[in-house]
Amino acid sequence: MLKNPATKYRPFTPVNLPDRTWPSRTITHAPIWMSTDLRDGNQALFEPMNAQRKMRMFKTLVQIGFKEIEVAFPSASDTDFNFVRELIEGGHIPDDVTIEVLTQARDDLIERTFESLRGVPRAIVHLYNATAPEFRKIVFGLERDGVKQLAVNAARTMKRLVDATPETAFTLQYSPETFTATELDFAKEVCDAVFDVWQPTPERKAIVNLPATVEIGTPNFYADQIEWMHRNLARRDSLLLSVHPHNDRGTAVAAAELAVMAGADRIEGCLFGNGERTGNVDLVTLALNLYTQGVDPGLDFSHINEVARTAEECTQLPVHPRHPYVGDLVFTAFSGSHQDAIKKGFAVQKDDAVWEMPYLPVDPRDLGRTYDSIIRVNSQSGKGGIAYLLEQTHGVVLPRRLQVDFSSAVQRVTDDSGQEVSAQQIWEVFQDEYVRSVAPLRYIGHALSEDGGRERIKLTVDIAGVRTVLAGEGNGPLDALMHALRTPVRIQHYEERALTQGADAKAIAIAEMAGAQVVGNAFGVGIDANLITASIRAVISGINRAYARSDADAQAHFFDAVLREVGQDAERGKALQAG
Amino acid sequence: MLKNPATKYRPFTPVNLPDRTWPSRTITHAPIWMSTDLRDGNQALFEPMNAQRKMRMFKTLVQIGFKEIEVAFPSASDTDFNFVRELIEGGHIPDDVTIEVLTQARDDLIERTFESLRGVPRAIVHLYNATAPEFRKIVFGLERDGVKQLAVNAARTMKRLVDATPETAFTLQYSPETFTATELDFAKEVCDAVFDVWQPTPERKAIVNLPATVEIGTPNFYADQIEWMHRNLARRDSLLLSVHPHNDRGTAVAAAELAVMAGADRIEGCLFGNGERTGNVDLVTLALNLYTQGVDPGLDFSHINEVARTAEECTQLPVHPRHPYVGDLVFTAFSGSHQDAIKKGFAVQKDDAVWEMPYLPVDPRDLGRTYDSIIRVNSQSGKGGIAYLLEQTHGVVLPRRLQVDFSSAVQRVTDDSGQEVSAQQIWEVFQDEYVRSVAPLRYIGHALSEDGGRERIKLTVDIAGVRTVLAGEGNGPLDALMHALRTPVRIQHYEERALTQGADAKAIAIAEMAGAQVVGNAFGVGIDANLITASIRAVISGINRAYARSDADAQAHFFDAVLREVGQDAERGKALQAG
Repeated sequence: MLKNPATKYRPFTPVNLPDRTWPSRTITHAPIWMSTDLRDGNQALFEPMNAQRKMRMFKTLVQIGFKEIEVAFPSASDTDFNFVRELIEGGHIPDDVTIEVLTQARDDLIERTFESLRGVPRAIVHLYNATAPEFRKIVFGLERDGVKQLAVNAARTMKRLVDATPETAFTLQYSPETFTATELDFAKEVCDAVFDVWQPTPERKAIVNLPATVEIGTPNFYADQIEWMHRNLARRDSLLLSVHPHNDRGTAVAAAELAVMAGADRIEGCLFGNGERTGNVDLVTLALNLYTQGVDPGLDFSHINEVARTAEECTQLPVHPRHPYVGDLVFTAFSGSHQDAIKKGFAVQKDDAVWEMPYLPVDPRDLGRTYDSIIRVNSQSGKGGIAYLLEQTHGVVLPRRLQVDFSSAVQRVTDDSGQEVSAQQIWEVFQDEYVRSVAPLRYIGHALSEDGGRERIKLTVDIAGVRTVLAGEGNGPLDALMHALRTPVRIQHYEERALTQGADAKAIAIAEMAGAQVVGNAFGVGIDANLITASIRAVISGINRAYARSDADAQAHFFDAVLREVGQDAERGKALQAG
Repeated sequence: MLKNPATKYRPFTPVNLPDRTWPSRTITHAPIWMSTDLRDGNQALFEPMNAQRKMRMFKTLVQIGFKEIEVAFPSASDTDFNFVRELIEGGHIPDDVTIEVLTQARDDLIERTFESLRGVPRAIVHLYNATAPEFRKIVFGLERDGVKQLAVNAARTMKRLVDATPETAFTLQYSPETFTATELDFAKEVCDAVFDVWQPTPERKAIVNLPATVEIGTPNFYADQIEWMHRNLARRDSLLLSVHPHNDRGTAVAAAELAVMAGADRIEGCLFGNGERTGNVDLVTLALNLYTQGVDPGLDFSHINEVARTAEECTQLPVHPRHPYVGDLVFTAFSGSHQDAIKKGFAVQKDDAVWEMPYLPVDPRDLGRTYDSIIRVNSQSGKGGIAYLLEQTHGVVLPRRLQVDFSSAVQRVTDDSGQEVSAQQIWEVFQDEYVRSVAPLRYIGHALSEDGGRERIKLTVDIAGVRTVLAGEGNGPLDALMHALRTPVRIQHYEERALTQGADAKAIAIAEMAGAQVVGNAFGVGIDANLITASIRAVISGINRAYARSDADAQAHFFDAVLREVGQDAERGKALQAG
């Protein structure tokens, strides 16, 4: 049994704020977003991102539209220091993006931090120290005054370094750590003292960041704390009030929203809630919560699957299938009554009208996704579903996203026939849908050769009725294949396994293709005794299916590069499309 | 780019409730919990649970301490109907547990629902119909009055059936569906009309359940709606006010908490937030949020890992590594400064004192878990961590929970030596820790035989210095092995893979053992050319490690069954422990 909590845990002390105003407010514009994926998110990973992954994540964040990105803790490791140098020296920081770095309150670390920023036109330098009573007592052995002096001394060192570096426009940021557990009057006292040193102005604001380093109460408690600080901080007009919620109680998104209603201007968090322990607040959910309220979030998640797969690869952590907006299952309806209501909803929903759809708070197409109505074959008789039957009868194990996709395909068949489908019919639908997709591109054969670690492919295909040989090279067979085909889509996920046992085993390869112009992702499957042939077939089938899911404009140019190579002109592409 | 949301999405209409009282309240006692894992959770799965899994989930819910469990939608499928019959006829419902069933507002379905309950001493019958404007318009094509009449007619049918069944103590429940999107005055009108038919009293209350079928606004909006209904519903003293939040905006936990502050008595949800789309509210997080506030939740999660693995097996959905309280990574600290603060915290934390620990809002031992401080070998030089090195040098891929566990083991070594460890040292530590654990039980050999689908094992082991042969049988080799050993632990997770390639490949088996008396789970690893030998070695090593992690009382009886069999008495167990 759980122990008696009354003697072991102390409840949070509510803020006495009977005239609070936040519960009557709504959010009408987006806050300033700050991504700390490369710092707070990265430090909480088994394997922190290497330089290559960090750069990939940085570019993704820029593409989404983040204007403030915390990129490193430069004094903590050479990897971090060098990444800041690479960003600056490689010219990777767009003109409208400001990088941010974190430092502890020690002179040598602060100096090293400024060193990392040499030559950058703009930067935010973020100072933090612990102010909560348990830290004062357990970690520092200092009283309030000692902790305040520590922050003030560090603030002075930063001021000196800022004044000595006129070529960079610095914004200074201060965080009293575990703000949520710090006495409000002391949090204000330390912040005021730091900003007394920095002397921000309404024209050149500083940032006061109030982290829920650990979430310790219901989200209204955090909102009360923020409103109290918002009202009582000195120099409020010279400050941007920032929040940094963690998710220990599963209410970080709520805490951030209520904090904005309470006066916060800025939110720090990570994509999909990565970060220490339970994670930082999820900026994707926050942004799309605004979007579905008719408020422009200023961040672009119109191809959310691509963002999710990039985050998964960089962090090596999964996005949960029930994660709001992005989870594999959040646009699926299993229940018959839900499916029925949504079907009726789509029938009356007009393209230019206000979104009014039972059970779906957002149009999945806005996020580059699709709505899937999942049927379960024989679910009434309890014999299990499509994926189960396919696995039992043909040994095919479908990854979850392909299960979702394939269920829709089977649904279309049953809708047409009005009858229950057999295991054999399911297998036929599966092959028709994913394996036998041979237009406009049909695989004929291939030859591979290796040269100094580079893989070269000669690929024979039939395209638009013309047989041709395409050449490509890359790090491996699939890289070479994609180079040879030069389509506007890419392989987002790939897996392959033995379909049967023994020496004559067939391999099944499953490719998930994505591209900016493709609605939802397109799956292709290849089955062959040769595992390389299986994967090439899977990719080509996926490309054909991505082509089918693209709009007319995109289709007209889908195979341009290849058609040029085989001596066909762009007219051919249009004819191809018409055919 | 995302489309212009201002023309596509309509914001929620705030409730005009300037004198709301909920923001000044705190939660001081647990609400009534209702688990809908077997209904709302189950209907949102690719493969709904079969009867066996349903029963397993039901028993787990009872064990946790749920007193109200929605078990089925009996009129929707024979599986569901039969499961209700099995619960009743098999005598599986404890005296202090009430089962609940859901029905739509149609006479034939209501009658079938009551039929499923024949002979049950107590039950909650839960009626719902859609009341929100988009449903009235799109799904029913009915005006307000028509929808109200539909609910009232169904309520009358239920009243008639209740009156005709005096042997069962029925509690009646009504839900206006998508309450959050229904005009408040109409929601009240329909609810009042239904309860006019049912005539509940303060002694025999009915349940009014107000579902956020789809979450459409910030959580304070839901709280305002609940407080409005709490104040304005007729017969409030004869009703239990129940909430049923979904998580479309990632704020279901917050919405439930604020709703309780606003007057709700009861919460419907699922373990770990399973359910349609983004899921129902997570009852585990809600309960433990109360626990860490010093409030007894009345639910027992003192062995949370076991609950998580059961839920994963029944739903075939993962629990996310950052899920509050239960995720694999939420009690790990990666950052050096976090580790340092926690170390100092543990040094001063007394067993009977109030929990006061930097970064850890709950004592992991209260949940049967352990705190793990994760080091990254060479993280400063960016060469990656322990798991990475092990994979690179020895081809061993560690599942995440074993990564966490093993990092602590390596940490202990580096703490002792103060030096950086090499890949070879890591491999030695791994073998010492998981592979070479041979006391008190040492594997000598085994023989297997199959008889009519039953597997029999003769296992030769050395226990407490005595060589003996133990016999067991089961559905498979591991089942037979566990039967032969008869220890108080069980296999919670198991995986095996080839360690090398080729015909002479060695297999590596990893077993995760759990038991009520074991703190955290215990991993064992076996490596052998024979994959069955590898798995037996893994389980035996895991049992030895579980023994080491048990308290003295449990250890004294750990091998009782086996010792009796080999003619040793209980004294031997104590000597074993002393040795």
